[in-house]
Amino acid sequence: MTKIKLTYFDIQGVAEKVRLAFVLNGVDFEDVRIKHAEWQELKPKTKFGQLPLMQIDDGEEVAQSDAMLRFAATLGAAKLMPKEPIEQLKVNEAMGLVDDIARSWMPAHSIGMSPQKFGYEEGFQNTDEGKAKVLAMRENWLKTELPKFMKLVTALIEANGDEGFLASKDAPTIADCHMVPLLRNYQRGFMDGVPTTSLDEFTTVTAYIKRFLSIPEVAKYYEK
Amino acid sequence: MTKIKLTYFDIQGVAEKVRLAFVLNGVDFEDVRIKHAEWQELKPKTKFGQLPLMQIDDGEEVAQSDAMLRFAATLGAAKLMPKEPIEQLKVNEAMGLVDDIARSWMPAHSIGMSPQKFGYEEGFQNTDEGKAKVLAMRENWLKTELPKFMKLVTALIEANGDEGFLASKDAPTIADCHMVPLLRNYQRGFMDGVPTTSLDEFTTVTAYIKRFLSIPEVAKYYEK
Repeated sequence: MTKIKLTYFDIQGVAEKVRLAFVLNGVDFEDVRIKHAEWQELKPKTKFGQLPLMQIDDGEEVAQSDAMLRFAATLGAAKLMPKEPIEQLKVNEAMGLVDDIARSWMPAHSIGMSPQKFGYEEGFQNTDEGKAKVLAMRENWLKTELPKFMKLVTALIEANGDEGFLASKDAPTIADCHMVPLLRNYQRGFMDGVPTTSLDEFTTVTAYIKRFLSIPEVAKYYEK
Repeated sequence: MTKIKLTYFDIQGVAEKVRLAFVLNGVDFEDVRIKHAEWQELKPKTKFGQLPLMQIDDGEEVAQSDAMLRFAATLGAAKLMPKEPIEQLKVNEAMGLVDDIARSWMPAHSIGMSPQKFGYEEGFQNTDEGKAKVLAMRENWLKTELPKFMKLVTALIEANGDEGFLASKDAPTIADCHMVPLLRNYQRGFMDGVPTTSLDEFTTVTAYIKRFLSIPEVAKYYEK
């Protein structure tokens, strides 16, 4: 049996999709969650200066969460990635839509941490002007961009029937592992300016999230 | 034989990786390049409101360039994607690094077109202050971020030997189709503030680009 160690911070972030794929596939893995203080020491020793990192059978460390997700899908019993190119295309198309949402959301999110990336002074997010800007950008994104994306997500789910997933009819794929943690960012109330009710009006989407979280393996994982 | 139609603007952009995969795989495809005026009319009719679009055997339209690239890799003779999960992991890890570079570059690039995405006034890029900001952000990125990424790219190439590609030793993969057009953005001189010499000091990288562009199928494609 393949021995897997996955190292990330103690948050969902970009590693959650990988964890979910292991959970769905019934693959035991060592779920290492480090503190930010440990990270400062570890960072210079890592391949790309990033987390998550994955180690397979005590081998070389591997970077990139998307690559880890795709690898996790090859390990277990669940069909998280279909075999036929034309069906893979559908899954990969949905994966791309998740990336589009994340990319679109990034400035409004990231300005609250790293305003200098966007041409503002360092520390701008802590000024009164900066705090107002962060909230205004997030509010505007939730009002204008989120509904456009939720329309696309709704259409993909509905094309797969009443019990549909994002790119499949009766069982999840890696696209769901990728999409659901992203969507839950708008429900979990941990980001300033993003109320837990943000998705409530998109009922196909909220039902889909519930359906995914009710899969026995997933429900058990989140019970812990 | 599968009939493929790929529709995009008459630029390299995010479709070039897909075109290169078809070229390397010797797959004939209809390379439709539309004008921005046509796009205004087409956009509301498209699946995700985006280009590129791909049509396979006159079927439904497919979106998402990453999905198209992965599909293109399944069609031809060239081994653009290995079969073994552990080798795929290496290719996918390199794919993720390309995405990281693109994501990091995005604000400095995009502020020149869509400053409102980053909390600035619409039209800011056309003011004196805005023009200076765009150039300063790009210059700063080229000076600070580009060298860090080029160090990682160099290490990946060198791990594959003197004639190495990004994730393979002797023949390109989809990771190269993805990486090379991105890298050429910093050599082609079409973006304000990005001189054609931007990559010159990273000699392993420039040699790698030349090696990829010298592959007979690729060279012939760019001769046109």
